Order: sequence, then C-alpha cells, then structure tokens
Amino acid sequence: MTQKKQKSSPDPKTFPKLIIASTEESADLLYAGGFNAPDEFLYYETAEEKCIVVSPLEYARAAGEANPGVRVIERSQFIDKEKPGESIAVRLSLALGVDHWLVPGRFPLIEAEKLRSAGIEVTCCQADSFFPERERKTAAEVKAIRQSQAATEEIMREFRQILIDSKINARGYLEFHGKVLTSDFLRMELEGNFKRMGYTASRTIFAPGRQGAEPHNLGSGPIPADEPIVADIFPRSDTTGYWGDMTRTYVKGKASPVVKRAFKAVLKASEAAKKILHAGVTGAEAHQTAADVLTQAGFPTGCGRDGKPCGFFHGLGHGVGLEIHENPRLSPLNPHPLKSGNVVSVEPGLYYSNWGGIRLEDLVVITAKGIQCLNTMEMELEIP
Amino acid sequence: MTQKKQKSSPDPKTFPKLIIASTEESADLLYAGGFNAPDEFLYYETAEEKCIVVSPLEYARAAGEANPGVRVIERSQFIDKEKPGESIAVRLSLALGVDHWLVPGRFPLIEAEKLRSAGIEVTCCQADSFFPERERKTAAEVKAIRQSQAATEEIMREFRQILIDSKINARGYLEFHGKVLTSDFLRMELEGNFKRMGYTASRTIFAPGRQGAEPHNLGSGPIPADEPIVADIFPRSDTTGYWGDMTRTYVKGKASPVVKRAFKAVLKASEAAKKILHAGVTGAEAHQTAADVLTQAGFPTGCGRDGKPCGFFHGLGHGVGLEIHENPRLSPLNPHPLKSGNVVSVEPGLYYSNWGGIRLEDLVVITAKGIQCLNTMEMELEIP
Repeated sequence: MTQKKQKSSPDPKTFPKLIIASTEESADLLYAGGFNAPDEFLYYETAEEKCIVVSPLEYARAAGEANPGVRVIERSQFIDKEKPGESIAVRLSLALGVDHWLVPGRFPLIEAEKLRSAGIEVTCCQADSFFPERERKTAAEVKAIRQSQAATEEIMREFRQILIDSKINARGYLEFHGKVLTSDFLRMELEGNFKRMGYTASRTIFAPGRQGAEPHNLGSGPIPADEPIVADIFPRSDTTGYWGDMTRTYVKGKASPVVKRAFKAVLKASEAAKKILHAGVTGAEAHQTAADVLTQAGFPTGCGRDGKPCGFFHGLGHGVGLEIHENPRLSPLNPHPLKSGNVVSVEPGLYYSNWGGIRLEDLVVITAKGIQCLNTMEMELEIP
Repeated sequence: MTQKKQKSSPDPKTFPKLIIASTEESADLLYAGGFNAPDEFLYYETAEEKCIVVSPLEYARAAGEANPGVRVIERSQFIDKEKPGESIAVRLSLALGVDHWLVPGRFPLIEAEKLRSAGIEVTCCQADSFFPERERKTAAEVKAIRQSQAATEEIMREFRQILIDSKINARGYLEFHGKVLTSDFLRMELEGNFKRMGYTASRTIFAPGRQGAEPHNLGSGPIPADEPIVADIFPRSDTTGYWGDMTRTYVKGKASPVVKRAFKAVLKASEAAKKILHAGVTGAEAHQTAADVLTQAGFPTGCGRDGKPCGFFHGLGHGVGLEIHENPRLSPLNPHPLKSGNVVSVEPGLYYSNWGGIRLEDLVVITAKGIQCLNTMEMELEIP
C-alpha cells in the first residue's frame, strides 16, 4: 500500500508580508517601518529582511527616521520608464523571488489584482490584527501614550479653567472675557493650543445640553449654564504618532437631579470596570460589568419614546495606540481575554435625548493583576 | 441559419458603485456622500439612488450633513446579531439585488473577497479617478478652495511679518522676541493659528538652508540669516474639507548670487507655465515649459557630485481639492489635456545640496482661455 503524500498548506502567518499605503491610512505601516509619510509607500517583511520602498523625494528623510533594522530602498529601481504605470509591487516581488504575500485586510484591491495577474499569490489576513503584537504595548509605547495623555489633561484643565472663569449671563449662557462662550470657540482655541504643544487634535467634542445625547455630536453654538457639557479630547502627537483620549462631563452652575444621578451612576460604572479589569478578563465581561451598574442604578439601555437609542449604547472602551480606535475592544462583541500591555479606554456613558449625555473616560494599561491608570484628573460634575 | 446571440459585456461605468472607507482614507467618499466621519462607513450608488450606510452613533449627524439627494440608512438592519462579523456589504447587496459592483482601486481586499465568496461580482475601477467629475471643480468648490487659499495667505503673511520683526544675532541666526527663531517654533505657532481659523495644518515646511534641498524636509532647528527658507503651507478646512497650498521662499538679509539667480529662474518658470496654461494643454507640456526655462537659465536637472538628484526633479504641479494631491498632474507622466475647472498647483523649484532650495507655488483654476490665479501675494526673495 502506497502512502499518499499529503500536501500540507503552509500557515499564512509564515508568508512574507506586504503593505502598500500611506501612514495616514495604515497604522501598521507606521508601526512596522517607523517612517511617517502622507504619500503612499511600500513595506515588506521576508524571512531575510524588513524594508520600506520610498520615492526619491522621501529617501533621505526615510533613511533618518526608519526603525532600526528596517532597510530603506529608493523605488526608482523598480520603475520601468517605458511602462510608468506598471506595478512596483510586481517588479519588487519578481526581484525578491517572492511568489506569495500575506497582506492586511485593507490592502488595495487594485494592487492585489496586479500581483495576481502577474502570477503572484496574495492572501488576505483574516485575523483582526496584521501585527497582533501591536495590541500589547512596549514600555516605550506606554511612555509615548502617557505623554499624549498628559498633554490631553493639560488641555482638559484649560477647559475646566475656562468654565471656572466664565460668568453666567442673564439669558443663562456662559460668557468668557465678555463674549458668549461657544463650542466652536473652545474647539478652535484648544485645538490651537494643542498645535503649540506639538499635537494635532481635530473633531474635539464640546457637546452641551441635548447635543451631548449623540455620542459623536461635536457640539456647536453657545454653552448654557446648568446643563452637562461632554468634553471628549483626543490629540495625536506630531512626533510619536501615539494618541491620547479622555472625556469629562461638567456642568457650569447647578446640575438637575437626574443629571446628578446619571453622573454618579457613570462614575460608579467606571470604578467598577476599572476594579475588575486585568489580564484574563474578556472585553465582553468588562463591558457587562459597567452596563450592569448602570442598569441597577436605574438607567436601562433601550429605545426612547422618540425611537432613538438611549442609555448606554456604545462599547465600554477601545484600544488606543497609533490608532485612536484599535484592538482590543471592551465590547459585547469581544469574547477574548485581555492581555497585559493592552492600553484601553474605559468610557461608560449615558445618553437621553431629553437632557443630554454624561461620559467619563480614562486610559488604562492592563497588567497581570489589574490596571495602571494614565489619568490623574478627578471626575467631578459641577463647576462653580 | 440560426444567429448566435452575442453576449456583450456591459460597460463597467454603468455598474452600481460601492465605497467602504472612512472619509480620512477616501476623498471620493466625502465627495459623494457629503458626510465626514473618521470611522468606516459605506456609500453606494445605483440607478435608483445614492445612499450612505452609517452606524447608529452617526445616524443623526449624517442625516444633517449628507449631500442633498443622498439617503442615510442606519446599518443595524444589515447586521445579524447571531453573526456580528458578517459583511454588511454582502447583506446590503442581497437586499438591493445588486450582483455586480464597481469599486475604487483602493477598495479593501477583504471586503472584495467577502462579496465574491457570496457570489457578488466586484470590478475594480481601472481609471485614474472613480468620480472623474471630481477633477473639474464647480463654482462652489472653487469658492471653498479660494477660502482655504486666503487662509493660507494670511498665515504666509504672518510668517513674512515674523521674518521682518526678527533680528539677526551675532552668530548669524534669527531672533524673534528675544529668542532664537526655529522651524519647530514656526510650525507649532502657525499651525496653532490655523486651528484658531478653523483649519488643520500638519507637516508644514519651514526648511532653511541646505535642509531646503530635500523637497519634503520639514525643517528643524534655528533659522539662519542670508540663506533661503522654503515655506510650504497647506491647511485643510475643518468645515469644507478643501485644501489650500502655497509656497514662498524668503531670505532674511542678503541672498548669495547663486540663490538670487535661482530665484529669478524659478519665478520665470512659474510665469512661463502660467502663461501657457489653459484647457487643452497637457500636464506634460506645462511641466516641460517650466523645465525648459530652468535649464535655459543655467539650472539643469540631473545628479549632483554627491550622487543625489539636483535641479528640478519633481512635477510642476498637482490637482488640489478634497485631497492635497489629486488629479490632474502637471508632470511628464500626464499626456492628457487639462480641462476648464481643474484646480492645480504651479510650483517649479530648484534644489542643490550645497545651498538648499527655492520653490514658488500658487494655485490656479484652468479656464478655456487661460487661468484664474487664487493667490495675491507677490513672489519676493529678500526680507530686509
């Protein structure tokens, strides 16, 4: 009896890896190459080497900025002047003798088709993460996120001080230095101050009153007294590329009883979630802990009389690093245990269209036994 | 004799169109939908309707911001709670009865594979542009770019004023308000001022001396007198999403003879290119006009003694709109005639590693008979 030779299919994880993107599109590219560029370039990783392939305009800068161990190649050598539209990836693959690449889920379809037409196989990464190691931050990465979070707290303190320094006018709106304070002014002024510190922030949320009932509403117009203002601030370092992210909700003046109760419930949910978080707990368990506290405090999640979702209808948190929203997620959809070195937001919230929203957000590093919190500012509601 | 029915393959342009991206990744998505969101959402266009499919968190905002005629759908209806990882695009296609999509070149490979596995065909757009009409700006778009360019000039004037107000210290560096003026300070300060005007600028170039010899070098460290400073400023409006883009090169103090000659040559190249630009001229012809002026002025393009490229080694210009670099290109690689309504940069430059760079950039609208320039600031070299 002859034994049939079984062809074992190789593990895709062992294929050479290829990314074609700009670092604005792909945090994986920035992570792997260390070089930040707004125009598309190419990264590959074989058993022999890690390499970025850049335009002649970028070569000198790339050579200075690339991660240690990453070789920088000028792409002209892969361009045939007679066929300028031809794929650099195809010529590179032929030059390297690579006949099968592993690529990220967001790899451009047109590049995959050019490679496949040239007889080079392309396997799309099916896992959540192209570089799963990105989810567990090194000490240097935690340091970079801590710096970004410190800058975030500096601007949050400035916002808090603006509230303290503001007066309430006869119509019930805040006035700062004699002018009605608006969300738009806060956003432009404080995002400007981030730039002065070497950070870029956009779409910063200052959502007053009922606007805060939509978690992604940026807020606009004058800021009223005695109503909650959701301030969600998330800058990215122009130097390191790592993000900060935090939220506080303040009321200038006196909060209504329901807002006070909601604030206490959200604070309690944050504390309960932080208490149970450690390596081994799943994202879903962490979420459920916070959700249960809110339900038990009398704030169920569901659909309001207006047909809109109300209560706590987003995930408890998300990974933060070179992307503002990355893995792992603290959400009912994540059954996987957290690992030490994960950096995640913890941001329970409550939203009701008749009065607005409360959200409180800190960043924490997951450790074997618990968490390390990257925030120092207390969670308080009323600003006198 | 029976006539064999010939199956004619339909024109891909007539297929329904599908985009899956964030608006940070895809200007096409922002153009088609009018709704700006940092998280991925879906746009489709069939013979019957144009539609965006967004998360429940974004629904209210999307309904308020989407372009007229674009329907907004909440995506939950396409999510099976039992199979949360399943493709929304597949369920949507089945619901719409679409069995063949046309998608952009940068469509995520993983989404294409999910659609194809479900029996839905996906054709990748082979043309340069998914929405070719994006290259010809409407009056409203020209107005938005004009606004962004006016903001850019405001900041350029501020930079020029800082140079005027700076003193030259004993070591030959600029001092502003008693402190040594650096590229880094200029970038943080002026990008901060953009934020205050409702614009976001990053990677703004203030490249002094030899740093200016690399066109993408951002510049760093103290600014010396008597050497060229390349200032390339390109903010994006936080409101409209349209970019501005301009470059001036100044010398605080006295320019060397070669820098003066290079400046005059670049200025002449800019004027010559603007003079021949109109609908019908190709991108390559416009580029060649500028390149010829520079060569004739004694500044040939080639390879320097240090092996680095020198002279005029980038394209003359690029389209500007919802992307900072978009079609059409003014480059040897673009044999296509320009069309009225194109908005392009005109930015000849000269780069030599022994003294640095000169680049002068305006934005122009292509018209039937010539151009409309969106800049008003003169091109001057020495700042006393």
